[in-house]
Amino acid sequence: MSAADPGPGAGELIDIRLDLPGGRRTTITVGPGALALADGEPVAALVADARALALHGQRLPTAWRERTLELPPGEEAKTWAGLGELLESLAEAGLERGCRLGLFGGGATGDVGGLAAALYLRGVPFVSCPTTLLAQVDASVGGKTAVNLPRAKNLVGAFHQPQRVLADTLVLATLPRDELASGLGEVVKTALIAGPQLLARVEALAPALLEGDPDALALVVADCVRTKARVVAEDEREAGRRAVLNLGHTFGHAIEAVAGYGIVPHGVCVAVGLGCATDLAARCGTLEDLALPERLARLLRSLGLPAGLAQLRSARDLTLHPAELRRAMDGDKKRSGGRLRFVLPRAAGAIDHGVAVDEADLSVVLAD
Amino acid sequence: MSAADPGPGAGELIDIRLDLPGGRRTTITVGPGALALADGEPVAALVADARALALHGQRLPTAWRERTLELPPGEEAKTWAGLGELLESLAEAGLERGCRLGLFGGGATGDVGGLAAALYLRGVPFVSCPTTLLAQVDASVGGKTAVNLPRAKNLVGAFHQPQRVLADTLVLATLPRDELASGLGEVVKTALIAGPQLLARVEALAPALLEGDPDALALVVADCVRTKARVVAEDEREAGRRAVLNLGHTFGHAIEAVAGYGIVPHGVCVAVGLGCATDLAARCGTLEDLALPERLARLLRSLGLPAGLAQLRSARDLTLHPAELRRAMDGDKKRSGGRLRFVLPRAAGAIDHGVAVDEADLSVVLAD
Repeated sequence: MSAADPGPGAGELIDIRLDLPGGRRTTITVGPGALALADGEPVAALVADARALALHGQRLPTAWRERTLELPPGEEAKTWAGLGELLESLAEAGLERGCRLGLFGGGATGDVGGLAAALYLRGVPFVSCPTTLLAQVDASVGGKTAVNLPRAKNLVGAFHQPQRVLADTLVLATLPRDELASGLGEVVKTALIAGPQLLARVEALAPALLEGDPDALALVVADCVRTKARVVAEDEREAGRRAVLNLGHTFGHAIEAVAGYGIVPHGVCVAVGLGCATDLAARCGTLEDLALPERLARLLRSLGLPAGLAQLRSARDLTLHPAELRRAMDGDKKRSGGRLRFVLPRAAGAIDHGVAVDEADLSVVLAD
Repeated sequence: MSAADPGPGAGELIDIRLDLPGGRRTTITVGPGALALADGEPVAALVADARALALHGQRLPTAWRERTLELPPGEEAKTWAGLGELLESLAEAGLERGCRLGLFGGGATGDVGGLAAALYLRGVPFVSCPTTLLAQVDASVGGKTAVNLPRAKNLVGAFHQPQRVLADTLVLATLPRDELASGLGEVVKTALIAGPQLLARVEALAPALLEGDPDALALVVADCVRTKARVVAEDEREAGRRAVLNLGHTFGHAIEAVAGYGIVPHGVCVAVGLGCATDLAARCGTLEDLALPERLARLLRSLGLPAGLAQLRSARDLTLHPAELRRAMDGDKKRSGGRLRFVLPRAAGAIDHGVAVDEADLSVVLAD
């Protein structure tokens, strides 16, 4: 990390506070070694991804691991039946109203574990310890929880905020390259929403981020969490403004669905979606910063991410038919009133949402 | 209904407004013919109890019945798998974010349909049309939704308020006698919480209520809804004061569990629970109105309800071992900190909650 970067020094933890209606509050601690704070945050049971537990379980206090419910890896955990089994396990463990759960794992663990916490006895508090970059950036704040139905991803869920988040960047050292890249896709999305300052910081730190430098990651994760916290505090239940967080996601979800879930990591799809959304904004004539497409493409490339559909197709040897992508968009839950709505950038820090576009413009983008 | 009763005249509808944090609002309309207002409240799909639909479906506008999802009767609908199927059906019907569901049926329909509305796309609004007295009194306001796990009733759920409630007392005419009695048990509970005025009104209207008089029922349902709305507005998520609504329920749930779910209707168990709670308060020395036990017993008898365990046993030829009841209480989710807490009356309108009691006093009550 360059000495010119402001903010906390190496190894320091960063605290971010999220205030929500009704006096609810979440404190998110980001940085190398954040899990050491788990000692002061007792939980009645731990819901954990088996792989994360094997790799980093020793970072958790013994008391956290006394009653551990292991989840199958990734999206496998996010089925209706799997959620039902998890809830049964909580009941079998005799957990009472007001007891607190600990979650340890990636986005899927947060999604299914958070939903279990939302539903068990109509809601118990939880402490979230996201172990992937994607989860630290995206899922550690916002309170969206979900499982999948056969028909579509995340079709069933609830809003349930964690009481406490510990985002330890040391655990990111063991992330497979693809998963690190996936998280960086969400980082770039968040930087586009935040504005020129965070975008410049991500550009400057790109090499350190790619190497998994825990201090560089901490700075960027903290900025992303602050950005998301600001948006979420304004609009917790996505009635309006929160929709900007879906930048790149209408395209991204379509790519995930057509490629087959799990084939291309979520954040990589989002990266491609950012390229598509910027391209679409240019075609619609709403893009104001005309240098943005090139700047975005350069940044994504420097992070090892594809900046458009063509790059994704060649990098991964995938067939993604435009007509299939278009159809998949109709199944996306961001639809409203029977018409697709897009989140499109005007410039870094200036994002439109709820934009209806011409099918002709959309077709050109999808045929890239 | 006697001419001395104040309030709206025969056939009139009563509107009650419930204001909740975050600008949310529910309007509850109670009275004979309330379902005629469904015309002005469009829904995208109807979730309905098959029996209620067969008996009273013709009272609903045609537009409501265009896309109907029928539920199995009663608690059968409230399984995890059943909820999953309902959610799949909503997805198959292509329902989008913001679409509104209509619910038509008793408490189970409200519980499972309300939970589906809470979870589908992380929450869609719903209009509730409760068709049993129990559901009109208890489930039409409060926003508690739930399904059962094999281990216990209502172990999984969410708080999700209906946007609109239409409680038509004309549909209560076809209620089986047991279900009417069940609703009257909840009426008496609510009257005890509300205070001397509603208690006196229920006493005065008892014969008309037993006959299913739709105007008498409307007056009492409206008063009960007002009482519950007042408590819920203070404490939507049952952090404290809302617990008073569980008066009679720690005993009631234990009776339901030991007798076997569905054997004794919920409100009948609550009626017995009211007798037990009053008895327990007397034994603990916290009862202030020493005439209450006799007054309550008289009222319950006049409504055809058992006022204690002994009466229930003889009326229904049931075996309810005190030790089994005591064990069932430990599984009740009102437990907290490892110790049973009770909701006990001091007098009509003066209810304590979170009361720890001596096991010896409890044993005597259970051995009645």
